[in-house]
Amino acid sequence: MASQTSWVPLDKNGDFSIHNLPFGIFSEGGSQPRAASRIGDFVIDLKALAGDEQAKQQLSSLRDLEGVFGQTSLNTFAERGRAVHRAVRGDLQRILSQSTDVPAILKDNESLKQKVLIPVEKVKMHLPMQIGDYTDFYAGYHHAYKVGVLFRGPDNALQPNYTHLPVGYHGRSSSIVVSGTPIRRPRGQILPNPAANPKEPTTVACRRLDFELELGCFICKPNEMGESIDINKAEEYIFGFVLLNDWSARDIQAWEYVPLGPFNGKNFGSTISPWVVVADALEPFRAQPLPNDTPVQDYLKESQKESVFDIQLEVGLTTADGDHVDLSKTSGRNLLWSFPQMITHHTVGGCPLRAGDLLGSGTISGTEPRERGSLLEMTEGGKADVQLEKGGVRRFIQDGDSLNMRGYCEKNGVRIGFGDCEGTILPAHGA
Amino acid sequence: MASQTSWVPLDKNGDFSIHNLPFGIFSEGGSQPRAASRIGDFVIDLKALAGDEQAKQQLSSLRDLEGVFGQTSLNTFAERGRAVHRAVRGDLQRILSQSTDVPAILKDNESLKQKVLIPVEKVKMHLPMQIGDYTDFYAGYHHAYKVGVLFRGPDNALQPNYTHLPVGYHGRSSSIVVSGTPIRRPRGQILPNPAANPKEPTTVACRRLDFELELGCFICKPNEMGESIDINKAEEYIFGFVLLNDWSARDIQAWEYVPLGPFNGKNFGSTISPWVVVADALEPFRAQPLPNDTPVQDYLKESQKESVFDIQLEVGLTTADGDHVDLSKTSGRNLLWSFPQMITHHTVGGCPLRAGDLLGSGTISGTEPRERGSLLEMTEGGKADVQLEKGGVRRFIQDGDSLNMRGYCEKNGVRIGFGDCEGTILPAHGA
Repeated sequence: MASQTSWVPLDKNGDFSIHNLPFGIFSEGGSQPRAASRIGDFVIDLKALAGDEQAKQQLSSLRDLEGVFGQTSLNTFAERGRAVHRAVRGDLQRILSQSTDVPAILKDNESLKQKVLIPVEKVKMHLPMQIGDYTDFYAGYHHAYKVGVLFRGPDNALQPNYTHLPVGYHGRSSSIVVSGTPIRRPRGQILPNPAANPKEPTTVACRRLDFELELGCFICKPNEMGESIDINKAEEYIFGFVLLNDWSARDIQAWEYVPLGPFNGKNFGSTISPWVVVADALEPFRAQPLPNDTPVQDYLKESQKESVFDIQLEVGLTTADGDHVDLSKTSGRNLLWSFPQMITHHTVGGCPLRAGDLLGSGTISGTEPRERGSLLEMTEGGKADVQLEKGGVRRFIQDGDSLNMRGYCEKNGVRIGFGDCEGTILPAHGA
Repeated sequence: MASQTSWVPLDKNGDFSIHNLPFGIFSEGGSQPRAASRIGDFVIDLKALAGDEQAKQQLSSLRDLEGVFGQTSLNTFAERGRAVHRAVRGDLQRILSQSTDVPAILKDNESLKQKVLIPVEKVKMHLPMQIGDYTDFYAGYHHAYKVGVLFRGPDNALQPNYTHLPVGYHGRSSSIVVSGTPIRRPRGQILPNPAANPKEPTTVACRRLDFELELGCFICKPNEMGESIDINKAEEYIFGFVLLNDWSARDIQAWEYVPLGPFNGKNFGSTISPWVVVADALEPFRAQPLPNDTPVQDYLKESQKESVFDIQLEVGLTTADGDHVDLSKTSGRNLLWSFPQMITHHTVGGCPLRAGDLLGSGTISGTEPRERGSLLEMTEGGKADVQLEKGGVRRFIQDGDSLNMRGYCEKNGVRIGFGDCEGTILPAHGA
């Protein structure tokens, strides 16, 4: 992969180089939301581009897509399959390249440029997909181990199934929102004194509000109900990736979650970044997942050993009065299970996936305190302070705090990134 | 409530009396699916009725609904709200009544009758709603207690949270199918010897396949994300009810479910009955839920004490070679938590519900062996036989077995029912 340049002005440390070209849904000035790609500080209006006669004639990938790009979600485009995503992205690279062989289409076409390239400050981003089902896995080994040590001690940190299968649970799709959407602190039942017997819950605003740093994976292809997806074909089902903040109310979750799993501790909101970075764009950044000493079942054995991506992940917290801390830096390699393994396990019993379904990786943590993907881990279960730059301290998230996640890959002069995954906490009702 | 009669011939023990008039989605001869009600052995084509000029003039409730009834799901109709459902059902009762004051609309209108009343044997039923999210609760006290005794003994049968809040978890909406759809036996990881250490899973066809007898509740009205639903307004959010078979792979579930809850043990298929019995139709059959000795939190206190329904529930099993057993009879009263309590708890932290969301009650069991809502309970965890009529025995469900659930209410000569909730098990792939 050689580094390419574009005639569109680009910041060399920006997320949206010509090597990225992700897909999203935008609107401007209250217009109907529609599909876009992005380069530098411009949104690329794909419906306008695919509706241009000259572009349609010379860029075969766009020929049938004007209507598809005019839809309010990317679901139909995603369903067209990876070959179509690849062709569209290839044609976008062709017309945006510094050395484009077809400058008349866009580079030298001022009127189309005015229509197609829209400054990002003029647009509002929306959820990229209509999400059918959302499944959250638990594949971040260091997170699962650390949380297990906090709750059960080092000898029983991981459940016996953990290294045999990618543990996951069904999440709530209705509460997934796009970056920039405020999140209301939830109320719910908690145990003020968890050690007391009998248990005496009270209903209050969450006191242990946390984030979880995850990668999200969007599905582009359905399987029939009753049919499983072969591990070596699972990548065909992947449209692309987003950053995911799985906001968590630790005190609500701790009381409610036995025996059926997290519920109100999770379903008050989950935030994703707006741009779906397609699987092809991440190809140069393949890496091996964490080693698993347990022999895995045949259906989970991958022939592609580099099945995760070396994505640099960062989380920052900014308070309402402007104090800040870079909380964490970690990598997308810190997974015991790859997304193809998650997809295959999800469908081994015949569960049907649909285009637009979202899979979460589970919290991604490294092994050091400032490589952790949640405050629960960083603060040893709420017992240690995190120092902010201007003197503030946090154990959990306070009202008015804004959490922002960023992710990027960089190699041989090529850099791509995900943009922001941000949410600010509003006070609970009645608090 | 006085018993009414219709000019449509009705079996007095049938489910679809003039007091019922549920809503569903049907097609005939490969037509586009559209909305229907049902009386006796006839489907009522609501789009055809609402498109008739005379009917529109005299039945004000139908005036704007031709397009809505032409849709492939009831979601838009449900969103119109309970006053609209009530008005439509009232107008249907008016034209179908033996003593109708408007016989010219349908009773004496042969050509419209031909179009609107379609014999059920000519139609195919579809999923009534496009289901956004599916949540399964655990509100059947006797089931939760019995399963707890089997797994943890009588002293720890129920988790401490059980009587404080309606425990629930997020299910899988993509695998919900309508009655009559075959279900493929899932494959998955199980522990052939659960007591052995280290654990040695193998991947095989499920050996402990079970049913779960539940009621399903469809939501008709959204709440804003971040806003909770007051317990005394929760019934406004209920469109109606269906029977629900939450098929369960007990061996897969037992190995996978810690710490995040059921996943592949449940997501291979859930079956619902096709007709949504609207909340109004169940009004005469209100009953009190099971008593709860634990003082509940204020947000869960209902002013309506009769908050569940006395629905007679039955399950039968028929084998591929025609052996049969009436497995179980129980009642919809066997719930510790009502659907309004489930709705309120679901949203106490601000989780948004949407029209089309489905809530499951959890397995409904009585206290006696043949009042149980699952084989797990009836067979003491797979240790006792259930005898079939012609000499067969079952501990769990075998390939080719068909499970059918039925539900009805009867009081003062008024009877309404749910129709069939049936599914037949296909052999696992590779089995």
